[in-house]
Amino acid sequence: MKTITFTSDFGTNDWFTAAVKGEIIKIAGDVRVIDITHSIAPFDIRGAAFLLYAVYNNFPKGTIHLAVIDPGVGGQRKPIIVDSSGHYFVGPDNGLFSYIYTPESEVYVINASEATSQTFHARDIFGPTAAHLANGALPEQLGKKVLDHERFDVPRVKKQGDRYRGEIVYIDHFGNCITNVQNHAELSEICVSGHHISVKESYGDGQANELVCVKGSIGYYEIAVYRGSAREQLQARVGMSIDGVKS
Amino acid sequence: MKTITFTSDFGTNDWFTAAVKGEIIKIAGDVRVIDITHSIAPFDIRGAAFLLYAVYNNFPKGTIHLAVIDPGVGGQRKPIIVDSSGHYFVGPDNGLFSYIYTPESEVYVINASEATSQTFHARDIFGPTAAHLANGALPEQLGKKVLDHERFDVPRVKKQGDRYRGEIVYIDHFGNCITNVQNHAELSEICVSGHHISVKESYGDGQANELVCVKGSIGYYEIAVYRGSAREQLQARVGMSIDGVKS
Amino acid sequence: MKTITFTSDFGTNDWFTAAVKGEIIKIAGDVRVIDITHSIAPFDIRGAAFLLYAVYNNFPKGTIHLAVIDPGVGGQRKPIIVDSSGHYFVGPDNGLFSYIYTPESEVYVINASEATSQTFHARDIFGPTAAHLANGALPEQLGKKVLDHERFDVPRVKKQGDRYRGEIVYIDHFGNCITNVQNHAELSEICVSGHHISVKESYGDGQANELVCVKGSIGYYEIAVYRGSAREQLQARVGMSIDGVKS
Repeated sequence: MKTITFTSDFGTNDWFTAAVKGEIIKIAGDVRVIDITHSIAPFDIRGAAFLLYAVYNNFPKGTIHLAVIDPGVGGQRKPIIVDSSGHYFVGPDNGLFSYIYTPESEVYVINASEATSQTFHARDIFGPTAAHLANGALPEQLGKKVLDHERFDVPRVKKQGDRYRGEIVYIDHFGNCITNVQNHAELSEICVSGHHISVKESYGDGQANELVCVKGSIGYYEIAVYRGSAREQLQARVGMSIDGVKS
Repeated sequence: MKTITFTSDFGTNDWFTAAVKGEIIKIAGDVRVIDITHSIAPFDIRGAAFLLYAVYNNFPKGTIHLAVIDPGVGGQRKPIIVDSSGHYFVGPDNGLFSYIYTPESEVYVINASEATSQTFHARDIFGPTAAHLANGALPEQLGKKVLDHERFDVPRVKKQGDRYRGEIVYIDHFGNCITNVQNHAELSEICVSGHHISVKESYGDGQANELVCVKGSIGYYEIAVYRGSAREQLQARVGMSIDGVKS
Repeated sequence: MKTITFTSDFGTNDWFTAAVKGEIIKIAGDVRVIDITHSIAPFDIRGAAFLLYAVYNNFPKGTIHLAVIDPGVGGQRKPIIVDSSGHYFVGPDNGLFSYIYTPESEVYVINASEATSQTFHARDIFGPTAAHLANGALPEQLGKKVLDHERFDVPRVKKQGDRYRGEIVYIDHFGNCITNVQNHAELSEICVSGHHISVKESYGDGQANELVCVKGSIGYYEIAVYRGSAREQLQARVGMSIDGVKS
């Protein structure tokens, strides 16, 4: 059974995600659709881009990742398929796949369909394209290979001796703040907005309300508070600078 | 694989939707259940009725639509199956299917089961009925055909020359306001609460914070703000009058 | 098709539930995963324990219930499989299965895996264990049977003549307050914080805004307000004492 994952900013109060799923199963009767989230902040392309990067590899190769954060729907932005690292990604060409691209990625502009709405391409273009891929269609049968595509600059770490200057790139539901410094940097401390925070083995190695750093589950250091919220204690936001220190 | 869609006001914090799904798979082991939404405002029959109408047709014919917004559970209201336009609908007879009924619709009162709770008919009656339909049972095997059923008056558009007086019938997660004037009216402008709003091709054809009208994805004009909320700008609510104008 | 249910406090804004599902389908390609809820209040082990108890039996025997409310992740608490009443439960040994245990329950500590994160055992240990059970592995192949496990004291009812002193054990999305007094007590009235509330057949037998008691759908009396919230009217909270009275 093929799997399509589905990420959007559609929320879960309306019929939008179900409309897409219905059109998918009209084409691919026995595909499985797994929701990643539909609670991306409206039009937050960068947040969604990081989230896709964090999770896609937990799925088997051959999975199709449908992602629709699409403020430009109905305008000039192109609908694309990305073939990268053994996975397919389907969505608008607006930077959403910035973390996914490698030099080997192939990008296809989806063939324009005759009659679609100007407001709901998830249902009319992206979902059906994902369904055709699930049925075994090749990207070159559904679109035209192109060499250029949109991509924002992914935040990079600057290394100076034993210091790593990075930033907070994502804040999760628990208030844990994920940085862009990789676990294999083997830090002893992270400094952020005046706090010096020790690296521990696990969340529970901190005292109650103590800020701790841990090696995060997707390969990057994160800042947390045991049974509390680092977001609140640090007044953290995405983009805030951090300094990792090796002892 | 048969599909059951599921709409309710149960929220997603408790076990209610899962209890229904568990009872469904006890009866129909390989059915697929697709959630439409469980975030209907408690007891908002009219909102749910519109939502079902907006989405049911995105599913293949033969789909079973389970819908439970049921303030009268355990009281006199009847549990029904509606056979309409090639789809089945299962839920309480309280107006929930008002937008679905056509002169050809057939309505069946579900045979009373021996032992059920007085508080959770989704789990005890409606879910199992949907599962039996998924297994191929016919409505006449599960209930008794009736001629009368509850139905509220669906809001109608009044046409006077080139003016269409309608109303806002649904407001979505993005704050887009869906009207009951059909796209094929070919309007040039919609007037609502003192605003004169031009019809554009797509959301992005407006300036930032500009109110625009577009042909909506379910066949009705909607009012939107590019990267903003028409609900907020218009202080819109369901039932607010609008006037469509042809140039 | 085997079913895994999934309960957590992960919320639905991030990628966490999808990461677990992706790892599950890597191991068990055609398993069905049904979400119970991911909106357990962060670290609310008692609330989740009650919820599991309320719903597990709506699923067929042989279902695997994955439940991860895990403030101690990465610490000393053990990962376990519970084999009880024909169902499997997989999660941390922190009291989460307190309502499930019977004298016949068997508990297994899951064999430690080589390389896992210290922060995301749902993805690295519990999900894969559930997937192996879905594939037909036996608990003794995945872990080591143990005799002791964590369990909190489930709130008990004290019966004195015709009075049942119990408490509110769960408050749902509608504000209905579920007690621990069983339906077969055949009460006529429940007294809570100065209110004397009559037992009725169904929610709708009360007047608007009237507090009523009804036999609840999981076998325990609950306090409700027709088209309103008992939680609000009673300023109710979990743990509040109630007295059931037989006429």
